[in-house]
Amino acid sequence: MNAWLRSFPASVPSDLSSPADIARFELDHTLPGEKVTLVDMPSLGEGYQIRRESDMWTVSGGSSGLLYGVYTLIQMLLSGEDVPDLFESSPEYSLRMLDSWDNMDGTVERGYSGRSLFFENGRFAYDPERIKTLGRMMASCGLNVLCINNVNVHEPAQRLLEDYLPEAAELADFFRPFGIRLMFSVDFSRPLYHGVSTADPLDPAVRDWWADTAKRVYSMIPDLAGFLVKADSEGRPGPFTYGRNHADGANMLADALSPYGGFVVWRCFVYNCRQDWRDTTTDRPKAAWEHYAFLDGSFRDNVILQVKHGPFDFQVREPVSPLLLGMKRTKLAMELQLAQEYTGHQIDIYTMIPMWKELFEDLPAGNIMSVAAVSNLGRDLNYTGHPFAAVNLYTYGLLAWNHAVDTRTAVCRWIRLTYDFSAEDEQKLADLLLSSRRVYEQYTAPLGIGWMVNPHDHYGPNPSGYEYDLWGTYHKADRNAVGIDRTSSGTGYLCQYSDSYRRKYEDPDLCPDLYLLFYHRLPYTFRMKDGRTLIQRIYDDHFEGYEKAVRMAETIACLPFPEEDRAEIEQRMKKQLYNAKEWCDIINTFFHRLSGIDDEYGRRIYP
Amino acid sequence: MNAWLRSFPASVPSDLSSPADIARFELDHTLPGEKVTLVDMPSLGEGYQIRRESDMWTVSGGSSGLLYGVYTLIQMLLSGEDVPDLFESSPEYSLRMLDSWDNMDGTVERGYSGRSLFFENGRFAYDPERIKTLGRMMASCGLNVLCINNVNVHEPAQRLLEDYLPEAAELADFFRPFGIRLMFSVDFSRPLYHGVSTADPLDPAVRDWWADTAKRVYSMIPDLAGFLVKADSEGRPGPFTYGRNHADGANMLADALSPYGGFVVWRCFVYNCRQDWRDTTTDRPKAAWEHYAFLDGSFRDNVILQVKHGPFDFQVREPVSPLLLGMKRTKLAMELQLAQEYTGHQIDIYTMIPMWKELFEDLPAGNIMSVAAVSNLGRDLNYTGHPFAAVNLYTYGLLAWNHAVDTRTAVCRWIRLTYDFSAEDEQKLADLLLSSRRVYEQYTAPLGIGWMVNPHDHYGPNPSGYEYDLWGTYHKADRNAVGIDRTSSGTGYLCQYSDSYRRKYEDPDLCPDLYLLFYHRLPYTFRMKDGRTLIQRIYDDHFEGYEKAVRMAETIACLPFPEEDRAEIEQRMKKQLYNAKEWCDIINTFFHRLSGIDDEYGRRIYP
Repeated sequence: MNAWLRSFPASVPSDLSSPADIARFELDHTLPGEKVTLVDMPSLGEGYQIRRESDMWTVSGGSSGLLYGVYTLIQMLLSGEDVPDLFESSPEYSLRMLDSWDNMDGTVERGYSGRSLFFENGRFAYDPERIKTLGRMMASCGLNVLCINNVNVHEPAQRLLEDYLPEAAELADFFRPFGIRLMFSVDFSRPLYHGVSTADPLDPAVRDWWADTAKRVYSMIPDLAGFLVKADSEGRPGPFTYGRNHADGANMLADALSPYGGFVVWRCFVYNCRQDWRDTTTDRPKAAWEHYAFLDGSFRDNVILQVKHGPFDFQVREPVSPLLLGMKRTKLAMELQLAQEYTGHQIDIYTMIPMWKELFEDLPAGNIMSVAAVSNLGRDLNYTGHPFAAVNLYTYGLLAWNHAVDTRTAVCRWIRLTYDFSAEDEQKLADLLLSSRRVYEQYTAPLGIGWMVNPHDHYGPNPSGYEYDLWGTYHKADRNAVGIDRTSSGTGYLCQYSDSYRRKYEDPDLCPDLYLLFYHRLPYTFRMKDGRTLIQRIYDDHFEGYEKAVRMAETIACLPFPEEDRAEIEQRMKKQLYNAKEWCDIINTFFHRLSGIDDEYGRRIYP
Repeated sequence: MNAWLRSFPASVPSDLSSPADIARFELDHTLPGEKVTLVDMPSLGEGYQIRRESDMWTVSGGSSGLLYGVYTLIQMLLSGEDVPDLFESSPEYSLRMLDSWDNMDGTVERGYSGRSLFFENGRFAYDPERIKTLGRMMASCGLNVLCINNVNVHEPAQRLLEDYLPEAAELADFFRPFGIRLMFSVDFSRPLYHGVSTADPLDPAVRDWWADTAKRVYSMIPDLAGFLVKADSEGRPGPFTYGRNHADGANMLADALSPYGGFVVWRCFVYNCRQDWRDTTTDRPKAAWEHYAFLDGSFRDNVILQVKHGPFDFQVREPVSPLLLGMKRTKLAMELQLAQEYTGHQIDIYTMIPMWKELFEDLPAGNIMSVAAVSNLGRDLNYTGHPFAAVNLYTYGLLAWNHAVDTRTAVCRWIRLTYDFSAEDEQKLADLLLSSRRVYEQYTAPLGIGWMVNPHDHYGPNPSGYEYDLWGTYHKADRNAVGIDRTSSGTGYLCQYSDSYRRKYEDPDLCPDLYLLFYHRLPYTFRMKDGRTLIQRIYDDHFEGYEKAVRMAETIACLPFPEEDRAEIEQRMKKQLYNAKEWCDIINTFFHRLSGIDDEYGRRIYP
């Protein structure tokens, strides 16, 4: 199984050692009838130029640029897209990262596609053919950095830069011809395990230890992209232990990596994960801004702050993180999550690109220089569990290259590369995929409120599952009202944005419906812009969401999937329908028990 | 650590092979100044007679009866109790069982005192000294059967009667001198693993397989008490697979054991554990009656139906199971649970004997012939995690001997045997222990409703944790009312009882408060007998329960515990206070959000 590389040869020969070699091989095998000349043009870097003269193509580019150009040309031609006579492109974001949350025991945190592609039993363990396919998949959609281990660095991954470095270097060799550089998640407290009495980032011995480590690591993997760090977050060690701030921590590591051109990618997922539910003054979405905004401008040039796209944690609908809008003097990466942690575990169909496009619309040009996405890959034969989950990886790559990519074009290209469908069937599947996020949103948590999910596992409804827990994610629904007031009259979260942004959301009568309960606490009788009451809108969304899921199943039943996909898709669709029905009925019952207000259309709400 | 056997020698010599030997040894070491003659009187069986003439004691009894008599004499004298000149006693219940839920991997299902005393790493693994202490603990309070493995028979415990039989026989040797017989939990489907094509209880090959197995087992352990079976329950195999009923299943095993005098103890914990929360016609408490009542009179003489004391599952307050009242022509055992699964995990103090006494009050004499209790023991140095949890094992033994035992006497004897307290301190601790169940009830789930607990783990509050789950345990609290109507106008559960019993509970105005929400669905404004509203009573109970827990902590701080106990007790008390506060605040908030009704006394209920 080659994911969307269906028309590509099963395997890439091992003796191909450069992007140009790979490019030529892929061309020869996918477009044997086309005459294509490859021109090495280092000045283009990762960019490329495709030029057509009569029946002759010329692709120019710097080393990996050449490969990106070739993959683009192949895919456009295979998909039957029009290729202009002169087509130039270069990536908008310099690091286009895929973050694996793989543990060395072989498990994958929030993984829904089987076990790790890289590890098993506390050591490296992989199938070289699958690694090469992963390299092709990433390069074919334009990704260039792969972090192979979980940001929660458990034993023995803490020793990845030590005992396992030779194996890591070997793995890096597989990815290099595809223009992909590795990255490692590191444990900030690591010096403590090597005779250094502290991990204080300002301590000279600590700085020395990290400098030595970087030297040793780069001597083995000279093109390593850098280190990814989750510090002072959900129990991970970090600079706070030593009374230092996160600029102190990140800059120390940055100094160690700077001689080698490496980056420190520093995650900004810091909040109080031991909150008391009784505390109404702390509001978790405010946390990232409070921890980082004041540090704007104080980070080294090779520090990238990696910020989750929203202020919570990958819910179906969140506003853009204020950090991504407000930190103008710091390098930023936006972090997305392909793994469907809160969005259906790769059982429910959930195509993300419409959501991502909304995020980028809210983001002024130039505010971020990189993007990252938590991987949805695993050892399942099709890599992504649900065959449709591959569209998220593919379109993420296109968007990470240039966020202006057209949504439908991207999805249709994935369909054409993956399936051999008629134009009509292609449109049916595209419609289904493009609507799937909204469908999921409708049958799950209403109007931006999020979190009505089973704790820990994060699949299936549990309207009060987090309500009295330590995680700072409360809706405080009572018999009259639901939601948290995050405006200036409430927790003040909205004050972390610019005035013009605030004005869009501050007034519940003007606030877009989809974010209504994220920003406001409102009575069930609140009148929405379309005249419906809030409670009626909640019921309507849930009934409609479930109905749409039923129709998705009908559509799927009629589409001509190949056998190996059909079984997976139908079996998962059955589970999705069960899940959608549970969500619909449980959330409606929950709100009906609270509000006592019946559905205007007399649809069945269980007591 | 010798639990309550503080004044006994640390160890029993290995060459003592009969109850009489043990009896003599214990006497010589605990009452060296007393002259005691032991008289073997087989006609007394497990009973004993203690006679005093001037300064001379005579204890007569059949083999283990002698040992029980001696333990009783020793403990009464050590506790300073008056021993009448002639004191005769014999057990009211013939099997007085302790059921371990130990798995062979060393874990203990619902165990809160460390790992298994018997198993580790898939095999037998124990400290002979601790096994002998366990034998003494059991014999000293009158228990005579020990089931060593979990009723959920996981790999490799399924092979206990096969590959591990010699080791099991060795373990039985340790217990025999203490008058204790082993019992094993068995897997009903076991013949399938031995070349028999079915486990159908009416199939001759199956009957033969079990007959052969019994023969083999009894050749190694001739005094084995029998087999314990959990069938067709929570995923365990059973007769239903073959269209047979539970009399078919139990009788088949009974026939296999009957040549050797063994019992089949057949658990009646059968219900639909995949219930749809939308289904309001199925009511889980009705399940046991529905599955067993019609079989009354159709079981073999050596079948004992083991029935959980209440119709749900060891909640803090449940009515007596209707099976225990209604099955007059079947041998019955009542199952209690020492392990504090739903009652505080041996962190919160919870002394059970007041609860048990209530159960026995509702039970006509002669209705049950045996008792069983799920063990609260583990590898912790003190065997029970919380030192006070030992009082539950000890008083369970006394009650299993004769349920007329006086509650305070039993608890005080345990205190005297365990601690060297003044009379005043002893009373303080006794008051604390005897009130602890009511305190726990007050701060947890109100008025018989149960189940407002964290799912799976069963510690800490989660008012809607089971509300939309598959387990059939719903309260359906809404903005107006709470509880399930289980009377004849509701699910009809109450109709499983006699008319006189029903009359006590049918009318909410007459139904005892403590069972009110078990039997009725009532509005928050319902007037209780004392004039309070239901909602006010819920608030009052929770605030009072927490306040009482605070006072328990104050009492404990003043009592002179030995060092090794003090640390355990205080550390757990701190956790109990946290837990009690969480329960109090969360349940009050939950009901305040629903009802919108404020506390009459203006105490703080969080929004």
